[in-house]
Amino acid sequence: MTFNNDMNGHHIVIIGGGFGGLYAAKALGNSTVRVILVDKRNFHLFQPLLYQIAIGGLSPGDIASPLRSVLNKYKNINVIKAEVVDIEPEIRKVIFRDGELFYDTLIIATGATYNYFGHKSWPNVAPGIKTIEDTIDIRHRIFLAFEGAEREEDPIKRKDWMRFVIIGAGPTGVELAGALGELANDTLKNDFRNIIPSESEILLLEGTDGILPTYPPKLSIKAKESLERLGVTVQTNTMVTDISENSVTIKKGEKTGQIYARTILWAAGVKASSLGMILSEKIGSELDSVGRVIVKEDLSVQGFPDIFVIGDLANFSYQNGYPLPGVAPVAMQQGLYVANLLKKRMKGEIIPPFRYQNKGNLAVIGRNAAVADFGRFQFSGFFAWLIWVFVHIRYLIEFDNKVLVLIQWAWNYFTWKRGARLITGEDTLLFSENHKNRLKN
Amino acid sequence: MTFNNDMNGHHIVIIGGGFGGLYAAKALGNSTVRVILVDKRNFHLFQPLLYQIAIGGLSPGDIASPLRSVLNKYKNINVIKAEVVDIEPEIRKVIFRDGELFYDTLIIATGATYNYFGHKSWPNVAPGIKTIEDTIDIRHRIFLAFEGAEREEDPIKRKDWMRFVIIGAGPTGVELAGALGELANDTLKNDFRNIIPSESEILLLEGTDGILPTYPPKLSIKAKESLERLGVTVQTNTMVTDISENSVTIKKGEKTGQIYARTILWAAGVKASSLGMILSEKIGSELDSVGRVIVKEDLSVQGFPDIFVIGDLANFSYQNGYPLPGVAPVAMQQGLYVANLLKKRMKGEIIPPFRYQNKGNLAVIGRNAAVADFGRFQFSGFFAWLIWVFVHIRYLIEFDNKVLVLIQWAWNYFTWKRGARLITGEDTLLFSENHKNRLKN
Repeated sequence: MTFNNDMNGHHIVIIGGGFGGLYAAKALGNSTVRVILVDKRNFHLFQPLLYQIAIGGLSPGDIASPLRSVLNKYKNINVIKAEVVDIEPEIRKVIFRDGELFYDTLIIATGATYNYFGHKSWPNVAPGIKTIEDTIDIRHRIFLAFEGAEREEDPIKRKDWMRFVIIGAGPTGVELAGALGELANDTLKNDFRNIIPSESEILLLEGTDGILPTYPPKLSIKAKESLERLGVTVQTNTMVTDISENSVTIKKGEKTGQIYARTILWAAGVKASSLGMILSEKIGSELDSVGRVIVKEDLSVQGFPDIFVIGDLANFSYQNGYPLPGVAPVAMQQGLYVANLLKKRMKGEIIPPFRYQNKGNLAVIGRNAAVADFGRFQFSGFFAWLIWVFVHIRYLIEFDNKVLVLIQWAWNYFTWKRGARLITGEDTLLFSENHKNRLKN
Repeated sequence: MTFNNDMNGHHIVIIGGGFGGLYAAKALGNSTVRVILVDKRNFHLFQPLLYQIAIGGLSPGDIASPLRSVLNKYKNINVIKAEVVDIEPEIRKVIFRDGELFYDTLIIATGATYNYFGHKSWPNVAPGIKTIEDTIDIRHRIFLAFEGAEREEDPIKRKDWMRFVIIGAGPTGVELAGALGELANDTLKNDFRNIIPSESEILLLEGTDGILPTYPPKLSIKAKESLERLGVTVQTNTMVTDISENSVTIKKGEKTGQIYARTILWAAGVKASSLGMILSEKIGSELDSVGRVIVKEDLSVQGFPDIFVIGDLANFSYQNGYPLPGVAPVAMQQGLYVANLLKKRMKGEIIPPFRYQNKGNLAVIGRNAAVADFGRFQFSGFFAWLIWVFVHIRYLIEFDNKVLVLIQWAWNYFTWKRGARLITGEDTLLFSENHKNRLKN
């Protein structure tokens, strides 16, 4: 396979405007190649702060940046809003649901979605935090639960409204549980007359034997302590075997049990975007158990040096035998790597294989508490939280001038305000016809 | 009818958390009456800035404040999230879709909704700016139209994508048209590669002979000039006789015509909330042609001194023979008046009839231009705009600590940024199966 050395004629198509796709595009900006970034949404979403929308701390607009405005200074980059449904690698064509596009080089960065392990009814009863729409649905459920409890007179039913189950104690589940704990203990403290929000039960269920399984055990224990201080009950070694409308069936060793709750949220495991499956069918790409594409050491796909897979869709296991984690820094570094490789390739040069430089992992557990793992250095508590705020604000500023929004948000963190706790969308009845309640005057 | 002089026993129910209901509640806060504010939403919405959401200038969270947090410092006020479906004035009962509530005094402040004058299909093809959901739908349509134009190769169809029709040139229609003009001319200037956004056609249709019909003619002319500078075409004396999926049928004198456009927005006329109709059926309250309740001079309802109607739902015509306009200051002053009346009434005192003090009208037409009518003083241009910004920020701050959000927004006004231009909601195909387009590399 030969490469077109006429850079003016070289067309790079990037599918996906997440961290991987966006960093690849930016690194190719104002070069002489032509780049088309295709995404089914018109915005880049800062997913690490998505859980803040669920608890009303941030609005969608605060953590989303229009792809066109992020990239508009690069005249060689065009953005197309379209959904890719197929790829024909033999003729270098990408097929949209409503159009098509040829490429010389293709970068696939379509990420991952929640994995319900084949349970078709679970997404409806236990939504996951992955898209803006899902997260607004979750915000709706959380705040409606408090409204329902406020109006409920039956003490048992009231407890069901005030019980929140979060399934999965990776970073998203832990951050969500911590934020929910703060919401109940502090933000809503004075807002109700019939209930005491801090009496909410927040249960965090995890299948393995500790929370934040990819973090060092010391930090995992610190995180658990911080959650408990916020009133979160952590149950490890707990498998979820079924979820229905208002209940979760669990298995803990030999024992099984059932938890009733009006609000059940899913943060357990992801599966790769369906484009991996297309590569598997069309060109026999090998996939791992969650559908990620096993990439070569230069992030290209076996047999197709003009197709790269980066970010959460890629399984890259050359550093310690384990796949790199599905986090933003991996995707960013991979995007930069592929952009650099392509620029060199067009000059006839080659670069060494991709290597991820782990600059640290951070998870926040409510106001003033976080855990930070920088390999040699590990922090927890307020200092880790400050690092976390700093890192997140730095990344957000990079895309968009949202400085003041973030200062406002950091300020609200200290004053417990949550301005964005709107219940929008379809009107939901709190009480069905058969148990109409009568409010005492 | 006698009133209960035991203030501890007096229960005031307020339906609706808009400007009228909220001001009444706040004025009764920390008094010895018990107040229950009922709203089907859990937030107060600053409707005058809703059109800013449509063009991506603000996020819903920026202009919405949770009712509970606005009122949580008043221990005698309870907020109930419920939808009122009926009232039984004879036994002083309010009926929810899922419950019921007794009152001693009732204040109805449920406002108005768009009036499509009986055309059932029009709301779907020409949504109006009234709720957050409608407005997010409009934002979706506006930004999708530019995406559609960018991908469309047929020049006629491309023009249809880039034609925006706004029906109704009251304050909302005028402000929306101006904001859309700015969006096309400035914000999106560098964002596209195949289209020039400033070539968009923005048509503002008005049935009467001038825009902002309730403003002094001089300001109406100034406003028209400002709009024209932003590329808006104003067509007065133009009646809309039909609206279908992508076209508007108009009648101008004897001539009829048809305008094709992918985006049609409705800002023509409002009708009162359905609770007016319930009062009419139950206690024979007189309604005007748009369903507003003709109130007495103290804002109570004929024959029921314990029921008050305020804000957009009330027709109060005692000052100059015309009903007061449906604007926030009228609702606020009426809310304060009724709260004051009730406090005095419980002491056995009476107060003079309600009188509206018009402190001025403001409409903004894009950045740096507004019209302000303060009776004796009338302004237009940048100075009016500054007043407009100041007044709006002042009101927003009153409810919630959104100072920095608003500074950010004012700053973006000068830098043309629109950070919240997300296309969310259902995925829409830009091109249907029968005209799939192929993009040139």
